[in-house]
Amino acid sequence: MTQRIITLIMSILIGYFSMAQNTYLNESADENEKIYQGGETYDVKIYPQNFKNKKPQNIILVIVDGMSLSQLYAGLTANRGKLFLENFKYMGLVTTHSADRYITDSAAGGTALSTGQKTYNGAVGVDINKKPVETILEYADENGLATGLVSTSAITHATPASFIAHQESRNMYEEIAADFLKTDINVFIGGGYKHFTERKDGRNLVEELKEKGYQVEKNINTIKSIKKGKLAGLTAAEHNGRIDERGDMLPVATNTAINILNKNKKGFFLMVEGSQVDWGGHAGSTIYVVEEMLDTDRAIGKALEFAARDKETLVVVTADHETGGMTILDGNLETGMVKGEFTTGGHTGLMVPVFAFGPGAEEFIGFMDNTDIHAKMRKLFLIK
Amino acid sequence: MTQRIITLIMSILIGYFSMAQNTYLNESADENEKIYQGGETYDVKIYPQNFKNKKPQNIILVIVDGMSLSQLYAGLTANRGKLFLENFKYMGLVTTHSADRYITDSAAGGTALSTGQKTYNGAVGVDINKKPVETILEYADENGLATGLVSTSAITHATPASFIAHQESRNMYEEIAADFLKTDINVFIGGGYKHFTERKDGRNLVEELKEKGYQVEKNINTIKSIKKGKLAGLTAAEHNGRIDERGDMLPVATNTAINILNKNKKGFFLMVEGSQVDWGGHAGSTIYVVEEMLDTDRAIGKALEFAARDKETLVVVTADHETGGMTILDGNLETGMVKGEFTTGGHTGLMVPVFAFGPGAEEFIGFMDNTDIHAKMRKLFLIK
Repeated sequence: MTQRIITLIMSILIGYFSMAQNTYLNESADENEKIYQGGETYDVKIYPQNFKNKKPQNIILVIVDGMSLSQLYAGLTANRGKLFLENFKYMGLVTTHSADRYITDSAAGGTALSTGQKTYNGAVGVDINKKPVETILEYADENGLATGLVSTSAITHATPASFIAHQESRNMYEEIAADFLKTDINVFIGGGYKHFTERKDGRNLVEELKEKGYQVEKNINTIKSIKKGKLAGLTAAEHNGRIDERGDMLPVATNTAINILNKNKKGFFLMVEGSQVDWGGHAGSTIYVVEEMLDTDRAIGKALEFAARDKETLVVVTADHETGGMTILDGNLETGMVKGEFTTGGHTGLMVPVFAFGPGAEEFIGFMDNTDIHAKMRKLFLIK
Repeated sequence: MTQRIITLIMSILIGYFSMAQNTYLNESADENEKIYQGGETYDVKIYPQNFKNKKPQNIILVIVDGMSLSQLYAGLTANRGKLFLENFKYMGLVTTHSADRYITDSAAGGTALSTGQKTYNGAVGVDINKKPVETILEYADENGLATGLVSTSAITHATPASFIAHQESRNMYEEIAADFLKTDINVFIGGGYKHFTERKDGRNLVEELKEKGYQVEKNINTIKSIKKGKLAGLTAAEHNGRIDERGDMLPVATNTAINILNKNKKGFFLMVEGSQVDWGGHAGSTIYVVEEMLDTDRAIGKALEFAARDKETLVVVTADHETGGMTILDGNLETGMVKGEFTTGGHTGLMVPVFAFGPGAEEFIGFMDNTDIHAKMRKLFLIK
């Protein structure tokens, strides 16, 4: 009982600090930020859906941090009624609450998806008792599959961290970075360079990564030229910038990771996070939400392009939670204008959609919990 | 061109007046109305999904006016994490814009579902040129099926009207009432008595209905005892009251209509509208939204109970649009507390979910337009 109370107090404190942490890139948005005026559009391709087996050899999980229906429809409107997401026929609705809270944070949300266990807000790859739980990435690795993580945030941030690290708090960035060295992950691309180098323990993890055979690169143009071997792409000291600064880093990193991982004949697991839809919601900025939604959709396009060609890859797209209590007050499907409104600077408990394409996609329908997504992926993985 | 401009101006005026019309039952909600404190729960049953054919003999279409994800999750939270809706495995996401507006009203939304045609806001069963378009109810009737409409609003209100009437404005209640006499609809239950009796043209449509062989009843307890024949249930002068006044009128009317319509060996089409989720959104009241969401879910439970037993019935649940720009700021799955927030007193353009159960349900997946729902229903109907 005392243990439970301590855990509860801890999780409230962690939740409080992690909310503060979540606002790095945010300024409070003025009214102009609430209207996206329309911009360039991109074409989407609709792919045929015929696959080799009933089970996938490869799974690509895309987490659109902070996305529920409003963020999705803001993107759909902005791109004049078309998204790569339309390729997904099978969909469901997902409850996202954490072990003890109606509203999850990205750490508990990520851990539910990565391990199938509900945990307290702030927990990274550990259960309610702070015990490490095997992640789907570790399960894939153990079974001889290649593994990868791609993110527009620091790669040590809550969502990607939940797939590879086991720490009682998402804020333990240096400990999370050190956990990367404990695994055989083949590719990771995101920000967070400083958590590998500027460390209280004096270790230089970049040197350690190189000793383990990783190509460590900071520049996305160098990264995209790498075709094989182990790769640590650390493209920012902490988080990558917004789209005008980082460009097409996310679709490029997604494509690069897929091509390297696909060298493994047994298959692979890749998690891709569009991290900053969440930050657009925290900032109350429709412009930010739309930019990030469309960028993530283009990364999804890269995953679909590969999956449609490969025919043995399951692509699952979901979110950890909704951010901003966003609604859309007006829009125009011809000009791409979107007028959003936000009712909180934090997360909400709203259900999020899940979409699936590829062998086993038909399992991802109906009402489910975020922990069910883990269970379905794990059950479906074709381990040869 | 002039014709187009006149139509545009007309539709703006109609839109304006229909928004005003939509607010009859609304008072602007105080802060207390934004928190539903939790109430009694009901059990839901999960039904097996094995059906006789690939195509349905009967279709029950439930329109939850004003429901998107927030309204649904408010209901799910209030009933402690369970709804009859969880029976639906197949789901999709639906765009709702009208012919000329990003944000539809219930008339254009209802007409898209009933006829498969986009039209201007305010239009009832007519296209952009005000030409009548055959509805799915008329199509069923022509093919010898029984037909029915059930609503908690006046039966002459936009949504049910769109399935049986052809008028250039939703406000032409007396003309809409007269259109009921032009059809062979077997059962209709809702409010709107005065549109049949207190008329400028001096006609008494209740007498005319009786002459055509209808049992005309005002009391839901009398109505529910009727097992066969033609039935006009007019349970209120205009709209039915809120739940504390009307009780379980909607689930009872749904069950009554199903049992009468099922006497027809060739099959039936029934549209059931949970009208007042929309009005809860217009009123900015979480309490109102939750009450109506749960009441409509219980009506859906009646449809599912029949469909699971009958094995030849397709149940489709969707909405015409979202109302209120609703979000959920907090909640509790143990106490049923829900704290909503509203960003507009009107509708929004947000996508809405569609759910299907029964033969052909697997057609209702992926991204679609509201007009596609009509096309799918019409294609699936097994006309013997």
